[in-house]
Amino acid sequence: MQIMKKNKLQIGMIGCGVIGSNIFDIISKRHADVYKDHLVVKSIIVRDIEKKRDLNLLGTKISNDISDVVKDNEIDLVIELMGGEEIAFDYISKCLMSGKHVVTANKEVIAKRGSELFKIANNNSVELRYEASVGGGIPIISSLGNDFSSNKISGIRAIINGTTNYILTRMSDGTSPFSEILKDAQKLGYAETDPTADVEAFDPIYKIIILSNLAFGINPDHNLIYREGIKDIKSKEFIYAKELGFAIKLIASAQKFSKKLLIRVHPALIPKDIPMANVNSSLNMIEVNGYLTGPLWFQGAGAGAETTSSAILNDVFRIKDEISKSEKQKTKIFPEDLQLLSMDMHECKYYLRITVKDKAGVLARLSKILGDNGISINTVLQKDTDVKFNNAELVIMTHKANEKIMMNAIDNIEKLNDVVKFDSLLRVEEY
Amino acid sequence: MQIMKKNKLQIGMIGCGVIGSNIFDIISKRHADVYKDHLVVKSIIVRDIEKKRDLNLLGTKISNDISDVVKDNEIDLVIELMGGEEIAFDYISKCLMSGKHVVTANKEVIAKRGSELFKIANNNSVELRYEASVGGGIPIISSLGNDFSSNKISGIRAIINGTTNYILTRMSDGTSPFSEILKDAQKLGYAETDPTADVEAFDPIYKIIILSNLAFGINPDHNLIYREGIKDIKSKEFIYAKELGFAIKLIASAQKFSKKLLIRVHPALIPKDIPMANVNSSLNMIEVNGYLTGPLWFQGAGAGAETTSSAILNDVFRIKDEISKSEKQKTKIFPEDLQLLSMDMHECKYYLRITVKDKAGVLARLSKILGDNGISINTVLQKDTDVKFNNAELVIMTHKANEKIMMNAIDNIEKLNDVVKFDSLLRVEEY
Repeated sequence: MQIMKKNKLQIGMIGCGVIGSNIFDIISKRHADVYKDHLVVKSIIVRDIEKKRDLNLLGTKISNDISDVVKDNEIDLVIELMGGEEIAFDYISKCLMSGKHVVTANKEVIAKRGSELFKIANNNSVELRYEASVGGGIPIISSLGNDFSSNKISGIRAIINGTTNYILTRMSDGTSPFSEILKDAQKLGYAETDPTADVEAFDPIYKIIILSNLAFGINPDHNLIYREGIKDIKSKEFIYAKELGFAIKLIASAQKFSKKLLIRVHPALIPKDIPMANVNSSLNMIEVNGYLTGPLWFQGAGAGAETTSSAILNDVFRIKDEISKSEKQKTKIFPEDLQLLSMDMHECKYYLRITVKDKAGVLARLSKILGDNGISINTVLQKDTDVKFNNAELVIMTHKANEKIMMNAIDNIEKLNDVVKFDSLLRVEEY
Repeated sequence: MQIMKKNKLQIGMIGCGVIGSNIFDIISKRHADVYKDHLVVKSIIVRDIEKKRDLNLLGTKISNDISDVVKDNEIDLVIELMGGEEIAFDYISKCLMSGKHVVTANKEVIAKRGSELFKIANNNSVELRYEASVGGGIPIISSLGNDFSSNKISGIRAIINGTTNYILTRMSDGTSPFSEILKDAQKLGYAETDPTADVEAFDPIYKIIILSNLAFGINPDHNLIYREGIKDIKSKEFIYAKELGFAIKLIASAQKFSKKLLIRVHPALIPKDIPMANVNSSLNMIEVNGYLTGPLWFQGAGAGAETTSSAILNDVFRIKDEISKSEKQKTKIFPEDLQLLSMDMHECKYYLRITVKDKAGVLARLSKILGDNGISINTVLQKDTDVKFNNAELVIMTHKANEKIMMNAIDNIEKLNDVVKFDSLLRVEEY
């Protein structure tokens, strides 16, 4: 156990992009008057030391050699902000093994290698904190870790990717396609040059794994989790969804069914009058369902330099507060041994859009397939009849059905001669 | 400092009403299998030991003498659930002085006498926790205490009284008057036989004091805080508010203006598209504005036996976890020395309803008074012309104005010969 001999924490920082610069600015400039008694940034490790940075470094060393932090015995705590898996894992584990506490915003390394890292931290009697990895400044990691010891959690459901929520919000009026809004989002800095992690929903997968670990003690392989991004959603879906009373959001969910846990990430329709339907732009919302508390909702800005800095600095202060005390064992009075539940077992209502030949009996044949599979129809809208090709569009809202059975029914629907194109399937989120 | 010699916490409970019985049931029956390794309820103190209780007491003693808990050296922790100020203060302080940790749901005693009690707890190296005092199972006390050390908080705004929110939600269709719905609420157990604490807004005053203490380090006298209940709100206000795009909620707010803090509790109009406008029935929502995080919202069931039990049991486990360690000093890097700001300094838009003589020039004379006071009008609706008495109703929405100036203008309006009755003033909450 690292015992602080002084009152002031010496910090090493790995990575100095938008968030790193912002934290450095808060500590060393904007609030130097209050921070100077608590923290000092001794070294910053960056990939390219030649790069122009708008920082007044004063006494802070800048280097591209991780050993300048690892081997510096005066450094108590390291803030890791480089992201990614392999190198981050290497650097974080080296810092932990040299007796330094680590605070990170890196969801990927925590989701994929967290259990190894926590073991290393524990063996070296140091702390590894990661509040900033999920939900920006929303204190969801702290809350799940501290405030649910008397609760079984039955489910977590969240909007936890700011980029996709921004894009979906912009698409909600149905006038602009995904590709156009993605370009806008990139120009405005809401989406990365390579947007894969967000639009293909890897980012929310990592985040829901982290939340599931805290809530359910499960440590699933991210490759086993159902993942569906937003890049295939058409703008007209938003118009019809609205007509039916729904918004479209990218949902990350982990839900318990007896001894099984279903984790899934996909776009979903949410009834307009549900709070989550109105979580717009880069806001995040996490819903936690405790068996004593009922549903609790945590909402706030899920991304941005300031709010992420808040989460990181708060972790730094938590460690500073605890640093002279022995390691804590959190009481977990409901030990659980959960396994992943297959997406096949998911049940919900479905929204289907299908282009069909505009002739008698099509809807009947289509309904028969659904009916034969035990799926009943709630609403049918006939849309956009295309006189030239003699096509019509059907928008179907089903009653609750099972995922595997629905997929089977869709296979059969696609084989119908009168079906020109199966355009869309969206799941309706249940509240 | 109390050091636990055993693994199992022995608990004394003061009060055994709805919440006490529920906690006892959870520990001793519903989840006895998991709780039995952690906790045992050794004694329960009640006012009337003869009263019939549907509890299987097994080994638990029941008594009406507080010394059966205070003098029992085996009891580590006391759960106080009696409510009220004087006797609760006496009992809690005796427990703390005899080296017992205390967990309470009592907002009144914490709001009025908290600083004395925390001093006693500190002097006796025991903990006093009170998560259940505000927001039911929403972990707002924990969050304000732990997750904002790097933040200045600029304001807190909340719907934190389930009873009044239930009544206002029921009134929102404008068909039933307050008195009728209050009776319903009493029948359904949502309101007490003596509803004063809720409908006169004492309860939210206590709660906003507790939150303000955590957020701003201020300890105001509750008599100095602006308090307005809901019993004078007419049902037609809901109809007009809706027409103008607003919901009506009882808001408790603590907001910083430079070195001053304005705390106020009163009914307010909230724009329909704001999340807080849609917090209905007995739900609570607390908005915390951090300078790094921006606004964060915490929402969930604010009342009820289960959710309150959750908060209490979680506090019990927090203490169990910490019990063998030395007292923690939370870092507060932004020490503040705030004073109360007068409600006179509040600024907002106002909704006014006024019954006037239906004749030419009335609106002009009324507008002149507002204009002379620098208050400009946003919207005027003329409603319910009463032909028999030759009266008309004016609903006026103003632009932003100062409270003191508005009160002065209203004094002058009431003196106009053409004003039959000044019906209503409501403040519009700004987002």
